[in-house]
Amino acid sequence: MSVGSILILPGDGIGPEVMAQVRRIIDWYGEKRGLDFDVSEDLVGGAAYDKYGVPLADETMDKAQQVDAVLLGAVGGPQYDVLDFSLKPERGLLRLRKEMDLYSNLRPAQCFDALADFSSLKPEIISGLDIMIVRELTGGVYFGEPRGIFGEGDARYGINTQRYTVPEIERVARSAFELARKRDGRVCSMEKGNVMESGLLWREIVQKVHDEEYPDVELSHMYADAGGMQLVRAPKQFDVIVTDNLFGDLLSDVAAMLTGSLGMLPSASLGAPMENGRPKAMYEPVHGSAPDIAGQGKANPIACILSFSMALRYSFDLGTEADRLDAAIEKVLADGLRTADLLGQDGVQPVSTAEMGDAILAAL
Amino acid sequence: MSVGSILILPGDGIGPEVMAQVRRIIDWYGEKRGLDFDVSEDLVGGAAYDKYGVPLADETMDKAQQVDAVLLGAVGGPQYDVLDFSLKPERGLLRLRKEMDLYSNLRPAQCFDALADFSSLKPEIISGLDIMIVRELTGGVYFGEPRGIFGEGDARYGINTQRYTVPEIERVARSAFELARKRDGRVCSMEKGNVMESGLLWREIVQKVHDEEYPDVELSHMYADAGGMQLVRAPKQFDVIVTDNLFGDLLSDVAAMLTGSLGMLPSASLGAPMENGRPKAMYEPVHGSAPDIAGQGKANPIACILSFSMALRYSFDLGTEADRLDAAIEKVLADGLRTADLLGQDGVQPVSTAEMGDAILAAL
Ligand SMILES: CC(C)[C@H](C(=O)O)[C@@H](O)C(=O)O
Ligand SMILES: CC(C)[C@H](C(=O)O)[C@@H](O)C(=O)O
Repeated sequence: MSVGSILILPGDGIGPEVMAQVRRIIDWYGEKRGLDFDVSEDLVGGAAYDKYGVPLADETMDKAQQVDAVLLGAVGGPQYDVLDFSLKPERGLLRLRKEMDLYSNLRPAQCFDALADFSSLKPEIISGLDIMIVRELTGGVYFGEPRGIFGEGDARYGINTQRYTVPEIERVARSAFELARKRDGRVCSMEKGNVMESGLLWREIVQKVHDEEYPDVELSHMYADAGGMQLVRAPKQFDVIVTDNLFGDLLSDVAAMLTGSLGMLPSASLGAPMENGRPKAMYEPVHGSAPDIAGQGKANPIACILSFSMALRYSFDLGTEADRLDAAIEKVLADGLRTADLLGQDGVQPVSTAEMGDAILAAL
Repeated sequence: MSVGSILILPGDGIGPEVMAQVRRIIDWYGEKRGLDFDVSEDLVGGAAYDKYGVPLADETMDKAQQVDAVLLGAVGGPQYDVLDFSLKPERGLLRLRKEMDLYSNLRPAQCFDALADFSSLKPEIISGLDIMIVRELTGGVYFGEPRGIFGEGDARYGINTQRYTVPEIERVARSAFELARKRDGRVCSMEKGNVMESGLLWREIVQKVHDEEYPDVELSHMYADAGGMQLVRAPKQFDVIVTDNLFGDLLSDVAAMLTGSLGMLPSASLGAPMENGRPKAMYEPVHGSAPDIAGQGKANPIACILSFSMALRYSFDLGTEADRLDAAIEKVLADGLRTADLLGQDGVQPVSTAEMGDAILAAL
């Protein structure tokens, strides 16, 4: 019997090669653990544009709406820079997020002991780091109307609209508070309510949800610029951070880079429960498509594999199996195996993308 | 004869005590170097609200429009959190920026050798750091209309508008290219043109200004989230960064915190030339009002004094005098004098705000 359905969208650049390793892991779960997934595959981003003329075909969108989990590799590449805004690879990704209504984007920034050296920060600042950033993913300036470039000559202007409604803020706040309850019980909400009314509303509603529904969780507020500073100064002060789409984009990237090993960081984007009780969900590594190293066997597949681990946990309620996968990855790292992004330490063994996959399978 | 006019707005929190040291330096220039400034003082922020009921009185605004340079301390404090949005201390600062049309905000992020220890980053990442962030300061989401909180109940929403016109982008781009010519000749422009049309226009216009007027400067473009990452990973790759108001707020704070010593960082906000050829100008430290340590003699006056040094350079064309002041500050640091924010190193001598002022005067 199938555990559930997965749509794989490898995308562009290193997407296909890291996703190939995930497929092997999925197959392993079928063969060795009797956990069969119903897997299909399709195109997104530049790869979809090349074949279908759009960064996400309607049929692919329909499929994504049907499955339990979408696994996405990465999108984008320099050859698509010339495309019209509406055809850019990113639009495929953004359409998936918006139409699946994946409002809660979970971005863990975790420092792996074996890799603390790779951080540009001092070891004592970063070792043991474990932050969860909850980024609102379907609202704000990413999707607000009006938007576009209008006018002629010097009167030309570009416009985007930051807009948040009360229910949009409430649901992502709940998601952050729920996570905090399973972690260290602390949420820090970030906005710019000192200059933006949308941020003022954000702060008010997060506080209200807290007071009415989660008084047991510790809530603090920070302006997003101060939040960026504090992430650099003393990141371990944070447990869960909740913030809007645009600040979340920036702050989660800063937080990810604190660890120094982007090739290790997964993410989950979750929406409302479907009929079968599972949330709408998409999983993707935090790293980009890295066109400069694509196809050379240099890419680190771990972020993408850890994204599948998040799928096991959040979509299929297979926490123990996710733990098993996480442990296999930790073992391989402890054994000193490193892809090209993580070389430079003494006594480590350089491996290719596929060899890293081999080792993780062996450790499983 | 007066060299020019200065309006001092000490503001809130530690603003008055750091500004008191600046006043002493200004007096020194009059007595010892024959450089008399015509100095007046007024209120801004919470201090203005307490006296006038508004965060910036119209008379103060008028004065600011008349002088050669405004020196501002800091605004804000927890007691003003309850105020209506339009009365918050920040509105005073934002009104000054907007009505003086100070579109180009120069924020150097420099690491002082003697203080490299204070960074949370590894010494080799940060030592010798010298970045100039040019932040657009009068446009974007800070001032765009429509804005506000509207509707009732669940239909309530907060809205802000990001809007940039071609001339707004052109003038701040020119400001960045001009600076780059006096520095290392490189500009990196940051936006989110992959998701925001206003960012797409930004990129296009910065490129056009470059190609038509500054082909000798090296120009690159980066998405703002990647820019945040690169600031953490390898900040020394940058010379001048140019970006919009909101990204500039966040990225300049991240860049400032890389140095670990916020109490050392000045800023200049420049507008168009006035009738006398000098630009409209306001100078302020990057640090905030730090209400928790206000009035205790703990504040570091150096950021505020360095802001006056920027005034000497950019408003009064007294580069040599600015160099003299910068050198005095470096000497005092090399001598081991440290305010409370910079303690913890071996063999340093703790001093109060006023004692730091004494020492800088002595070094002059
Ligand atoms: C690729 C891009 C559209 C995307 C975003 O801006 O959200 C990326 O930066 C991310 O953080 O997932
Ligand atoms: C105080 C606040 C309004 C201001 C801003 O957001 O611009 C501050 O953060 C700054 O960077 O100068």
